[in-house]
Amino acid sequence: MSPTNPARPLPTAPISLHTALASFSALWSPRIVTHVNDYDVRVAKVEGEHIWHVHDDTDEFFLVLEGELYIALRESDGERTVLLPQGSVFTVPRGTEHKPYAPSGAAILMFEPTGTPTVGDRHDGIPDHVDATTGHALDL
Amino acid sequence: MSPTNPARPLPTAPISLHTALASFSALWSPRIVTHVNDYDVRVAKVEGEHIWHVHDDTDEFFLVLEGELYIALRESDGERTVLLPQGSVFTVPRGTEHKPYAPSGAAILMFEPTGTPTVGDRHDGIPDHVDATTGHALDL
Repeated sequence: MSPTNPARPLPTAPISLHTALASFSALWSPRIVTHVNDYDVRVAKVEGEHIWHVHDDTDEFFLVLEGELYIALRESDGERTVLLPQGSVFTVPRGTEHKPYAPSGAAILMFEPTGTPTVGDRHDGIPDHVDATTGHALDL
Repeated sequence: MSPTNPARPLPTAPISLHTALASFSALWSPRIVTHVNDYDVRVAKVEGEHIWHVHDDTDEFFLVLEGELYIALRESDGERTVLLPQGSVFTVPRGTEHKPYAPSGAAILMFEPTGTPTVGDRHDGIPDHVDATTGHALDL
């Protein structure tokens, strides 16, 4: 665990996830709501398909706040898809190629190390509707 | 970031937080629902008062799933209390003495390094209703 970066102070007041989600409309474009040591807590609005990608060195945690999220997984014994209804959680293991998608739209919360790119370390081509980012500041 | 402990495999299916919370009744006694690298995702039912305590080396993240949570904070310029309504998040900075309480009860999700004790590194006396633990396995 690395020391807190003094240039990156923690928010001093609680943040409503509802308010955070209402502050932006871009899809597949996470906002950093707070952080925990050297991890980000990010929220995103999603709809349609993300891309196949893999994070070689980190797990990635998903909590579905609204709607439902599918995550397709390419594992050693084949491909499968998990469905996360509202209020459910799932961690994608490091090194597992995955593609999140949400045909009807969803709002999600993620925990992952600060600096983790949304498109992983290796990925398919990035279409216009997917934001390749390490997360944007929340602008409330 | 340390490598994933192979003795601690990730859950292979999504977990409903509602189901997780329905699986136990103890107060102030977190269950580990999943993990992310060397961090735990824990849920707890709380009601009444926790104790003043401090985590010297880690921030602590709270998300209120149900009800509302108060966190009293002893900061360099005095004591204050933050209120987290349902759906809000707050990170207590490392080194800040704090006391969570929930007069009407709440369900919360926490994100913190694996092994972090619920009562911190320094704390008041531990009453019977507070479980001094690093989190219990979920038994679904």
